[in-house]
Amino acid sequence: MAKSTLHISKGVEDAPSINPKLKAHPFARRSPEELALKLAMGDLSALAQGITLVESQAPTDLSDASELLNLLMSKSGNAIRIGVSGVPGVGKSTFLESYGIYLLEKDPKAKVAILAVDPSSAKHQGAILGDKTRMVELGKHPRAFIRPTAAGGALGGVARATKEAMILCEAAGFNHIFVETVGVGQSETMVSQLADCFLFLAMPGTGDELQGIKKGIMEMADLVAMNKSEGEYRTAAERGALEVKRALQLVTRSQEEWIPSVSLISGLFCEGFEVLEADLERYFRHAKIKGTFEQKRNEQNQFWFERSIYEGIQSLFASDINWISLKSALNQQVLSREVSPFEASRQLLDSLKGKI
Amino acid sequence: MAKSTLHISKGVEDAPSINPKLKAHPFARRSPEELALKLAMGDLSALAQGITLVESQAPTDLSDASELLNLLMSKSGNAIRIGVSGVPGVGKSTFLESYGIYLLEKDPKAKVAILAVDPSSAKHQGAILGDKTRMVELGKHPRAFIRPTAAGGALGGVARATKEAMILCEAAGFNHIFVETVGVGQSETMVSQLADCFLFLAMPGTGDELQGIKKGIMEMADLVAMNKSEGEYRTAAERGALEVKRALQLVTRSQEEWIPSVSLISGLFCEGFEVLEADLERYFRHAKIKGTFEQKRNEQNQFWFERSIYEGIQSLFASDINWISLKSALNQQVLSREVSPFEASRQLLDSLKGKI
Repeated sequence: MAKSTLHISKGVEDAPSINPKLKAHPFARRSPEELALKLAMGDLSALAQGITLVESQAPTDLSDASELLNLLMSKSGNAIRIGVSGVPGVGKSTFLESYGIYLLEKDPKAKVAILAVDPSSAKHQGAILGDKTRMVELGKHPRAFIRPTAAGGALGGVARATKEAMILCEAAGFNHIFVETVGVGQSETMVSQLADCFLFLAMPGTGDELQGIKKGIMEMADLVAMNKSEGEYRTAAERGALEVKRALQLVTRSQEEWIPSVSLISGLFCEGFEVLEADLERYFRHAKIKGTFEQKRNEQNQFWFERSIYEGIQSLFASDINWISLKSALNQQVLSREVSPFEASRQLLDSLKGKI
Repeated sequence: MAKSTLHISKGVEDAPSINPKLKAHPFARRSPEELALKLAMGDLSALAQGITLVESQAPTDLSDASELLNLLMSKSGNAIRIGVSGVPGVGKSTFLESYGIYLLEKDPKAKVAILAVDPSSAKHQGAILGDKTRMVELGKHPRAFIRPTAAGGALGGVARATKEAMILCEAAGFNHIFVETVGVGQSETMVSQLADCFLFLAMPGTGDELQGIKKGIMEMADLVAMNKSEGEYRTAAERGALEVKRALQLVTRSQEEWIPSVSLISGLFCEGFEVLEADLERYFRHAKIKGTFEQKRNEQNQFWFERSIYEGIQSLFASDINWISLKSALNQQVLSREVSPFEASRQLLDSLKGKI
């Protein structure tokens, strides 16, 4: 953090125009216009600072964050957004580091951003953050950007931070965005609502390849990669891939729909990446031809719009002591089955009459 | 409807105490107390009238409906609630009629209610209603009650009507409640949030048994019955059942969890019902021992409480012309990607400041 502050101060001194508001601010700080300008030129410290700004919950940052996003909105949307999930130990970080470097070396125009989402980090003191320190190689690459989203709180809050970080990364010219998530609680569902493509990492196990695959993950995966398909594990991986393939076909047999492919990869030895890349390209071609690519992005935007209105309204009421105590009393009655949940909500809503 | 009105008028004349409010009412109508009394004694016309009352959206009916529910709430909760779904043509009505009669003939204490939910009925002029006329045998049985829920509108509205009809059925002594749904849109998800057990009907097809099984259904099913497993279809049904079984095991492999069983039945020839009944009993035993039975009911109540608060708040705002026009304008900007969905919701919520 100290390092990035240094960068920022330097940036401000170099900036062609200094916002007059800056003088009143206790710390040197770029205006949204300056940040947007630097960021759109691909300046990584501006990108980092921008993300910190949109992540901030401080009321004083809200209008600057809004302004920054509005300035950059039109420059976003041009990346492919890939959600990556899998059980702890499946090798997500190793895979992302190797595959990121593979993409960067292959294509001089590629720019790879990795956003790591851990909704539980507030509780677990950011386990995923520790993970990131392992992506040493990729982290040093000038066309890579790695960022853990430390935001906790409501689902919508974490999603907002991630989605807005994504917008800023795209505005900064990143064209491959990976959103990594640990398989905790609702994080996969959230990431699948942020990404164009959901890549699930599996691994060969002790005869039970699907161990740990939670309910619902099969239906969310657009692609599956069997990681650690290397050396002595190769045979087990091939068997596991077949099993996963069969399961995937059973749940998505429609003619119209995409049937997820399953590839064998090794993050550690950088193997199978050509096949995975071809699978990804095939997926995006299919989604664009069928129109599901744009449709999905629209639905996601609609989803988050409704969702965050909902969360916002809830937090408005959350400061109303009468609402809270009535809701909690009614909730008790619902749980003890004295009153139907619908009747309880009617009573709660009646208390709003004349207020709205 | 004419018939049931006749019943009702008769009931009112016979009633021991006539509510004074009745005289002012244009049509003879039972008070909530009278209705509750008759209903708790198992009077089917009172049950039908009670359901009509709780389904009613008329503002004048709201307080009577609330009162009726509050009077009967403590008498509900003693039935097993089974959601039944499957693609059109799988034979849901035929199955429910045969299986209902099977239960009634086996156990003189059994009372079977069938609530048919069709959220699309507002559009399709109640296709499911036409279906119901097919359950002739069961309909004539004195311990059976068949009722289509014609309510359209928001998910929460249909769910409320169904859930409250369920409460009234239970209060009237029905101990087997089946909620039948056509596989349209979100109806399965809704029914799975109302029932203790979700029974999915499949059928042997032309070598593709899972055709028509939508994404997500596998994860919702607690039990699967392969209907039409009769005569020449038997072999295909057995093969199909194996395939479904494998798919189900793959998506729910956890040790703790219930692995849905798959039985072969014939609604038409009343075959396989003993096995299905044993499967259902095994499911309920498992759910009660593991505590998931009560937990699920609690979670469902909580879900509908939150959900209908949300829908209620939305409909409160829906009458606010400024809110509507701002929301629609912002929604346009979200879809044309001029503004992030989170930024749009911030702007919308800002318009509430000082109002709540």
